[in-house]
Amino acid sequence: MALFFRTIAGVMLMLAASLGMAPAHAEDGYELWLRYHPLAAQQAQYDRSRASQLVADAATPTRAAARAELLRGLRGLLGAAPPLSDTVTRSGAIIAGTTASSPLIAELHLDTSKLGKEGYVIRSVTLHGHAAIAIVGNDDIGVLYGSFHFLRLLQTGQPLDHLAITEVPRVKLRVLDHWDNLNGSVERGYAGTSIWDWWKLPDWVSPRYTDYARANASIGINGVVLNNVNADALILTPAYLQKAAALAAVFRPYGIHVYLSVRFSAPIEIGGLKTADPLDPEVQRWWRQKTDEIYKLMPDFGGFLVKANSEGQPGPQDYKRTHADGANLFADVLAPHGGVVMWRAFVYSQSSADDRAKQAYSEFKPLDGRFHANVLLQVKNGPIDFQPREPFSPLFGAMPKTPLMMEFQITKEYLGFATHLVYLGPLYEEVLSSDTMAQGKGSTVATVIDGSLDGHALSGMAGIANIGTDRDWCGSDFNQANWYVFGRLAWNPALSTRAIAEEWIRMTFSNDEAFVKPVVDMMMGSREAAVDYMTPLGLAHLMGPGHHYGPAPWDTSLPRADWRPPYYHRADHQGIGFDRTRTGSDAADQYAPPIAASFNDVKQTPETLLLWFHHVPWDYRMRSGHTLWYELVAHYTQGVTDVKRMRETWQHLDGYIDADRYRKTAAFLSIQEREAQWWRDACIAYFQQMSGLPLPPGFAPPQHPLSYYESLSFHNVPGQSSW
Amino acid sequence: MALFFRTIAGVMLMLAASLGMAPAHAEDGYELWLRYHPLAAQQAQYDRSRASQLVADAATPTRAAARAELLRGLRGLLGAAPPLSDTVTRSGAIIAGTTASSPLIAELHLDTSKLGKEGYVIRSVTLHGHAAIAIVGNDDIGVLYGSFHFLRLLQTGQPLDHLAITEVPRVKLRVLDHWDNLNGSVERGYAGTSIWDWWKLPDWVSPRYTDYARANASIGINGVVLNNVNADALILTPAYLQKAAALAAVFRPYGIHVYLSVRFSAPIEIGGLKTADPLDPEVQRWWRQKTDEIYKLMPDFGGFLVKANSEGQPGPQDYKRTHADGANLFADVLAPHGGVVMWRAFVYSQSSADDRAKQAYSEFKPLDGRFHANVLLQVKNGPIDFQPREPFSPLFGAMPKTPLMMEFQITKEYLGFATHLVYLGPLYEEVLSSDTMAQGKGSTVATVIDGSLDGHALSGMAGIANIGTDRDWCGSDFNQANWYVFGRLAWNPALSTRAIAEEWIRMTFSNDEAFVKPVVDMMMGSREAAVDYMTPLGLAHLMGPGHHYGPAPWDTSLPRADWRPPYYHRADHQGIGFDRTRTGSDAADQYAPPIAASFNDVKQTPETLLLWFHHVPWDYRMRSGHTLWYELVAHYTQGVTDVKRMRETWQHLDGYIDADRYRKTAAFLSIQEREAQWWRDACIAYFQQMSGLPLPPGFAPPQHPLSYYESLSFHNVPGQSSW
Repeated sequence: MALFFRTIAGVMLMLAASLGMAPAHAEDGYELWLRYHPLAAQQAQYDRSRASQLVADAATPTRAAARAELLRGLRGLLGAAPPLSDTVTRSGAIIAGTTASSPLIAELHLDTSKLGKEGYVIRSVTLHGHAAIAIVGNDDIGVLYGSFHFLRLLQTGQPLDHLAITEVPRVKLRVLDHWDNLNGSVERGYAGTSIWDWWKLPDWVSPRYTDYARANASIGINGVVLNNVNADALILTPAYLQKAAALAAVFRPYGIHVYLSVRFSAPIEIGGLKTADPLDPEVQRWWRQKTDEIYKLMPDFGGFLVKANSEGQPGPQDYKRTHADGANLFADVLAPHGGVVMWRAFVYSQSSADDRAKQAYSEFKPLDGRFHANVLLQVKNGPIDFQPREPFSPLFGAMPKTPLMMEFQITKEYLGFATHLVYLGPLYEEVLSSDTMAQGKGSTVATVIDGSLDGHALSGMAGIANIGTDRDWCGSDFNQANWYVFGRLAWNPALSTRAIAEEWIRMTFSNDEAFVKPVVDMMMGSREAAVDYMTPLGLAHLMGPGHHYGPAPWDTSLPRADWRPPYYHRADHQGIGFDRTRTGSDAADQYAPPIAASFNDVKQTPETLLLWFHHVPWDYRMRSGHTLWYELVAHYTQGVTDVKRMRETWQHLDGYIDADRYRKTAAFLSIQEREAQWWRDACIAYFQQMSGLPLPPGFAPPQHPLSYYESLSFHNVPGQSSW
Repeated sequence: MALFFRTIAGVMLMLAASLGMAPAHAEDGYELWLRYHPLAAQQAQYDRSRASQLVADAATPTRAAARAELLRGLRGLLGAAPPLSDTVTRSGAIIAGTTASSPLIAELHLDTSKLGKEGYVIRSVTLHGHAAIAIVGNDDIGVLYGSFHFLRLLQTGQPLDHLAITEVPRVKLRVLDHWDNLNGSVERGYAGTSIWDWWKLPDWVSPRYTDYARANASIGINGVVLNNVNADALILTPAYLQKAAALAAVFRPYGIHVYLSVRFSAPIEIGGLKTADPLDPEVQRWWRQKTDEIYKLMPDFGGFLVKANSEGQPGPQDYKRTHADGANLFADVLAPHGGVVMWRAFVYSQSSADDRAKQAYSEFKPLDGRFHANVLLQVKNGPIDFQPREPFSPLFGAMPKTPLMMEFQITKEYLGFATHLVYLGPLYEEVLSSDTMAQGKGSTVATVIDGSLDGHALSGMAGIANIGTDRDWCGSDFNQANWYVFGRLAWNPALSTRAIAEEWIRMTFSNDEAFVKPVVDMMMGSREAAVDYMTPLGLAHLMGPGHHYGPAPWDTSLPRADWRPPYYHRADHQGIGFDRTRTGSDAADQYAPPIAASFNDVKQTPETLLLWFHHVPWDYRMRSGHTLWYELVAHYTQGVTDVKRMRETWQHLDGYIDADRYRKTAAFLSIQEREAQWWRDACIAYFQQMSGLPLPPGFAPPQHPLSYYESLSFHNVPGQSSW
């Protein structure tokens, strides 16, 4: 029957292709990397013989999810799902389960002692005389993770023989932070509105939530902060907690815990108290009761994310208490339930005249050791704010007694919004592989984050989600890769982001090498291109005021100095760059001595960070032998050239994938090329006015005078918090 | 080959069904009534023999769209598209085209003289000795409309023999008004955000726009106002006009014209003028140039929709000019291009103490004859604002020299938002069939609207769209029926809305009589149920302040008297209702004498409108013999009972349709039942406090005391204009 069916299916596919039949549904990106479209015939035949029956039970929601995913995936990839069986009766069986749940798996006597709760093995075995593949975890969630991994092997065309895969996550908390407001808008969201339909929850639970959970589980994400860090206290009211609990119920089988962003002053706003002082017993009681109420609704609730005393948010300093006092308030009420506090280190003072890049370190370093055991300090990758390139934050390595959690941005607030193709893997990898030298060579940021450097059992990585109601989830098909690479790196920060790009392309688009190779190259080069056309050589924060759209290095319209581009580039007739050495703000000395030494020395500072740490004259001689001015213009120009090349590469790939996704990416690359040109021309025009220097020979002048770029203004720019 | 293919396809479908295979894509409502899923075997066999080949060219974009739709529809419904042919070579050919474009069709010598531009015939004919079906229009758009009609015959299981269909639209402008803001929010929208991705237009043109155009063309809608009547002047800037033009290019092949809502003060806001006085030559020149600019981008641009001097919007009265002066300003600049002005009659003064229900009539009736030829006055169906039930607006029939355009609301601002199942067909039909008696018996609102009563060539019907980014377009599957019925009635206001409901159900869900019959009944009763549980017996506007969510008959929080529920119900210890007779506001006398006479007489006034026109004592004796108080309680209770019955009806229909849409509707009916109960209980509790009367025997008391209902407040209610 199965063979017959597969034959018919094959005929159907052939016929459909030969008649030029459009598929019933468009390729709209909804399926993400879990498309499970039919494999090429030869590979499908190979895989079918190794997935000829499925032995997996559905006795728990998580094992049911694993089995359903295997059936769904194999059905899609191979044309038909293998038959379910209670035992192995033929060569090529797939057995999925835990040692405790499956006597068959128990017979294998696999060593699962080091897998922990979330790890798994995928092993080629012999069972009752038949070759089989076992997918085994200690816990159900390991089985689910292993099932997704197994499907990925098929999706990416890997061999299925002699499998001996052991995977254990290196980071404990792998979390998406949604900056979603309760009115449906998403701060710095460029993919529609919030996917949480708060209004209809908890009565109506959209099937999309399940697909969201599947996608996250497929890359090992195990936590979701539902709401914006600029939190509305309403999230803690019973009505909203019921809504959150409905989502938690969907996520639970997929190993995903719900967290909430809380507003420090909630005891006043919804609790009727007069204070939110963390040392006030009434305040403590209020939070304890609220926390108990939450855990009644969600026994596996993850904990709180808190933005306090940052950009106008209330916090413990309003009561002359420290960040540690604030964090410990929450830690103590969460601890009995096993919850954690993720306390954000993103602070900079409204009043301080100190270099903004220094302030988080100055604030938090002295508090090392003062946080209770279930507090993680959540630190943005760089000292400012998700710029195309920053040095790693000096906090990494500087607080050995505190688990530091990484905060990456997946949404592209400063990297072209939805339409620029910028693969963030290289950015993440650059940060994670940076050596803090905190405990000598090899003290990489990754070892800080995964807890290994300082022996923390608690560890975490957060990514600001780029997910919204857009049908493709992320505003573009290629933005999906940033969600994907974030999850894969949170699981294992040592993975190659090139390899991750390749597997994502294979799963999302095609296994055709003629497509995969150029697209991997395009993705891998895309982040450096963005750095070049936006903020090369260590420049930062030249974006338009508030909305962060397009270039505005001249702009001084915002009320705070450290929100204005000139604060960052400090260009004048003599030179450009922010002196963060000992002659300047001395931010460089926040790093470990060997790193500080190189950042303090203009000659040792990597040129990619030159203007981050140094104010240098326009005629400063670069390693190339050219002047700084020349290199600045050259980098801006290179960025545009790179995007042009990306667009041309894509043009050559027409026909390799469906027309819908091909055309959308083509349209977006055109936008990117135009905007890259705009960035280059506006910045060159502006900096030329500063430098007073002629354009180096061989470079085209800006298309318009500086006044044109300065005159542009934009309305209804997406991603702003107030609609 | 075709037969072989169909056999294989049949086997596939059987196999898929027998193996319980989930479809690759969920039934998420995206396909609307154009699903084209396979017909039952017997019907498919019948239809295949009558659609055995397709003779249709694709030489123009509109004919290409018609042919593509026929191929898509027949492929989906019958398992395979019929082969294309240049001529008729077998029995069962479908020939689609115009007399001018197709010599074959010319051979038929069909009388198309009365079809106009948009009409069509579908005729069973004999061509070259073969039985065939001809789909013929004078113009391409007629061919497209006819093609959709032909497909509808198949979708709804109609016979295809002896076809002699002639269709001509009875209303010229059939328009959807989108209350979409440029920031993506939708005023009174309950289906996500605006489907116009303004930010990415014109570079990225989503395929969804084409599906939107297909859906509209399938029901004959030929105009779209892209933006909110509370208009932002920015829509007229070059950047936004480019975006609008990109949409117009998508819509053009589907016979859909783009219109824009314009802000009266735009010459000041974006034109740099000091005034927007319609008689100022500079203002006139500005609008003329702006209009010329628009027509350069969109030669088939439809015209302007204007909300002026209404709810704070600027308008001609700011300059002591009349509405006619304002409308004629636009009329004169649009006339050379063939464009029209749709001028809204929805006005009520901030300062006037006069009954709000009277004000539009008072304002506009004296202007009859003062509008230029290309002005339509767009009048809401009732004198207040889209209530569950209102009498028809007294303007209908009162302005014979002016084409009056109907404005219906499709989005359910006052009818339960997205989740209440309320089929608006009966509401529309009730209004359209109302006799204004303006020129004696038979002067129905429909005859005013279609221009026949007063001999206007220009006629129109507008519906406030219920469309957004939600995957199902309308916030629920059943809300799609309201878009559908609006379009069908705009084409022909005399159609039966029961018949329309039935055809919609067949196209959207199933042809199974066991499903169709109860769902038609449920839909047809749903509007009266909503009237009963919200505002029975002529009550109106008891909704929550501003957001219009839930009951708040007690609320006086808003600044204007005529925004407060007590203004409308006027309940006190003696009685309830708004006296609009000669002893009261005398609104009744705005109707033609025979109608006015009956509305002035409490005994002749239909009880469905009793409290709209009369303030009557609580012990007023109703036709049933019961008191008004009894009937009020009985109606509120009946509304809840009806919704409970709807939910039970749906429960019995599990299994007739896909699980996805079944479950969503079931969840929404549960919400509706709970909210209907809330409405009933809150209103009875409140009116009981007013009447001081005991609950009539046999009726359950409210579940909570009045204070409970009064204490409820709501945050982030959807559909409000400011996010």
